[in-house]
Amino acid sequence: MSFPAHLIDGYRAFLVSRLRHEQDRYRALSERGQSPQVMVIGCCDSRVSPEVIFDAGPGELFVVRNVANIVPPYAPDGQAHGVSAALEFGIAALKIKHIVVLGHAQCGGVKAFAEDAQPLTPGDFIGQWMALMAPAAEKTGPKGSLSPAEYLTRLEQANVVNSLNNLMTFPRLRKVIERGEVAVHGAYFGVATGQLSVRDEASGEFLPVAQEEHARLFATPRF
Amino acid sequence: MSFPAHLIDGYRAFLVSRLRHEQDRYRALSERGQSPQVMVIGCCDSRVSPEVIFDAGPGELFVVRNVANIVPPYAPDGQAHGVSAALEFGIAALKIKHIVVLGHAQCGGVKAFAEDAQPLTPGDFIGQWMALMAPAAEKTGPKGSLSPAEYLTRLEQANVVNSLNNLMTFPRLRKVIERGEVAVHGAYFGVATGQLSVRDEASGEFLPVAQEEHARLFATPRF
Amino acid sequence: MSFPAHLIDGYRAFLVSRLRHEQDRYRALSERGQSPQVMVIGCCDSRVSPEVIFDAGPGELFVVRNVANIVPPYAPDGQAHGVSAALEFGIAALKIKHIVVLGHAQCGGVKAFAEDAQPLTPGDFIGQWMALMAPAAEKTGPKGSLSPAEYLTRLEQANVVNSLNNLMTFPRLRKVIERGEVAVHGAYFGVATGQLSVRDEASGEFLPVAQEEHARLFATPRF
Amino acid sequence: MSFPAHLIDGYRAFLVSRLRHEQDRYRALSERGQSPQVMVIGCCDSRVSPEVIFDAGPGELFVVRNVANIVPPYAPDGQAHGVSAALEFGIAALKIKHIVVLGHAQCGGVKAFAEDAQPLTPGDFIGQWMALMAPAAEKTGPKGSLSPAEYLTRLEQANVVNSLNNLMTFPRLRKVIERGEVAVHGAYFGVATGQLSVRDEASGEFLPVAQEEHARLFATPRF
Repeated sequence: MSFPAHLIDGYRAFLVSRLRHEQDRYRALSERGQSPQVMVIGCCDSRVSPEVIFDAGPGELFVVRNVANIVPPYAPDGQAHGVSAALEFGIAALKIKHIVVLGHAQCGGVKAFAEDAQPLTPGDFIGQWMALMAPAAEKTGPKGSLSPAEYLTRLEQANVVNSLNNLMTFPRLRKVIERGEVAVHGAYFGVATGQLSVRDEASGEFLPVAQEEHARLFATPRF
Repeated sequence: MSFPAHLIDGYRAFLVSRLRHEQDRYRALSERGQSPQVMVIGCCDSRVSPEVIFDAGPGELFVVRNVANIVPPYAPDGQAHGVSAALEFGIAALKIKHIVVLGHAQCGGVKAFAEDAQPLTPGDFIGQWMALMAPAAEKTGPKGSLSPAEYLTRLEQANVVNSLNNLMTFPRLRKVIERGEVAVHGAYFGVATGQLSVRDEASGEFLPVAQEEHARLFATPRF
Repeated sequence: MSFPAHLIDGYRAFLVSRLRHEQDRYRALSERGQSPQVMVIGCCDSRVSPEVIFDAGPGELFVVRNVANIVPPYAPDGQAHGVSAALEFGIAALKIKHIVVLGHAQCGGVKAFAEDAQPLTPGDFIGQWMALMAPAAEKTGPKGSLSPAEYLTRLEQANVVNSLNNLMTFPRLRKVIERGEVAVHGAYFGVATGQLSVRDEASGEFLPVAQEEHARLFATPRF
Repeated sequence: MSFPAHLIDGYRAFLVSRLRHEQDRYRALSERGQSPQVMVIGCCDSRVSPEVIFDAGPGELFVVRNVANIVPPYAPDGQAHGVSAALEFGIAALKIKHIVVLGHAQCGGVKAFAEDAQPLTPGDFIGQWMALMAPAAEKTGPKGSLSPAEYLTRLEQANVVNSLNNLMTFPRLRKVIERGEVAVHGAYFGVATGQLSVRDEASGEFLPVAQEEHARLFATPRF
């Protein structure tokens, strides 16, 4: 199979629309290098693109994406750790100011974990990876009388918080956070409605942002 | 520091432009679940967003991003492996048809590796992570009479090929590739010019695509 | 001189971005015909595109544009009248529900009138055309102590009101307005700031809309 | 009826997307004034926005729109003539370099003329206005064995040519055209397919532009 034709078409669209309007910026970003202020740790999910949700232009977001937006805890064991390497690059080389962990509704990774909590075999990569969210499941507690959808939402949000907690296990990152040089934030995207929520640090709740605009959007028919 | 105001503004822009035009699609994608046909393994770099370069809409691209678009080799060692978990999810759960490894010019991770090839300490995450591209450096050979820029371009493209090679170390993935059910592709984005190249499997060369449109873009002044 | 290359490039951009996303809509609009609910009478000025300012898609706005967004008074004299023909087509054939007269700051036509109030010769088309706004100048009164910029703003807004008044001289249009089947509105676009104002019918004042969003836009630096 | 809510929503979208990215340009265009190089004479039709079809930014196109993109012939009779005033402003004040008459398929004005060729009463503004295209109908000749759709297409294109011819009746404009300082062009937009054609001056035929891209668009399914 050759390179997908619709990707080439998409690239042509990029060429004549985005690149046409932003070619000076791409050139400048090439000459000066990138200097994003925000790092996003998001999910691979095809419905949750950080650049789309935050309408970000080239040079704005330094983005890690893995299944279920997971930050594993600090583990200086001499092994290759992708998220840890990205954090190190973001903080030390790029001097990032904000780290956003962006979770979302209907996360396939979280669902896989909820339905089958044990990794099956050493080659069960999804199981091993999702096991990193075990502390989130523990804090969420038993399903009790929650509907499956409600339970998954809680688990997805607890998983964001677990990633935020794991950020604090990196000594160097903890230091710059405590000094107020870097801030960390939790966010959550509702795929069905497009509503973004941001975690309120005081209450721990995920609160909808731009709620008035969002309500208006759904209240006014286009025609 | 509170949640960055410019991200909220960007989200408002998403709300009234993208979501306004695509809310039916987001709702449908929420109800039916995602079913992307293409998986992209790209870099965290803020100038190389796969959704932007391929002008992709919600639901189209399943995206992994780490420093230097690296696929580590298959390692069923019972540890958590983010890229391997994403590959497993993409192939087994989503039935992805194409995997694109998307490298790019001026990659900070590749540069870090080129300038300082050994990981320094067990906590040197960038060093450990970039060590995964050692086979690419070996195949590229010594810098010789190449300019630094030329050498880095070769290394960046060899690093894409190394990731493609590592994909073949996953037994299940190898099987579906050999059966022709999944295709893998190498691509390379030139940040300064916006030119995308795709690896020609026969020659191993990265060849520019939509070159005529690209040339026209730079030939015609906007006003 | 051949057809401008940058227009062809722009058309290519339309093809791969707008048409690519909206081709079903163009096809449907071709099969069913147009049925816009809003008619806009705007100025030729290159900075004041109604489709851009109202982010309108294909099929949404029926648009007349002439120098200084002028509606001449009803004149059934057997001559060809472009605006009158468009009004007739909009009301009788398309069953338009809203008519918006859209004025704007720094209008070259209004400025030409303010600086040189008499048409010079029978072939002085600008002079003859702008003479249609004489009632607006009369109502605005003398420049007095107003700065030139303030005076022009008043004149531009009075010119919108004059067009609204002239709409009422068309018997058929007056009837459907009085029946509440069609509504007429005055609006004013500030080119420098991008602020849109809408005329409040009770007070006659042009009041800014979406002012909070507008203020936020200029308060938050992008990076 | 108050100002349409969906127009305010559209303006909000303009604010946070277009204006957000182009506010420097709007400000500069306000300070320096507009200096478009291209004037477009187009139709009011809601499906044929020149800014959309040519993907034009603020300051690029000086636009007249009336029913059926008509340029009436030169008539220095001391009456108000909107198109003539705009031509005078474009040529004398703005030093426009190109004038494009943009016709389109399924034009309601042309259809009205074809079905009922006489203006009925002095107050029949559409009839009086469309009578300006009588020379186009004469040159097209009788319907003969053409299908209604074919006949209308010929009439629409002949109407563009009639407007081009009428441009030459303006002495001042004729002079700058003959000196090669201003060029005039005919174009035609196919609403159903989105195909743009440009009139070839040698043959008089309307020839499709960017045909390869257009064909590709319809050949490649999006997914």
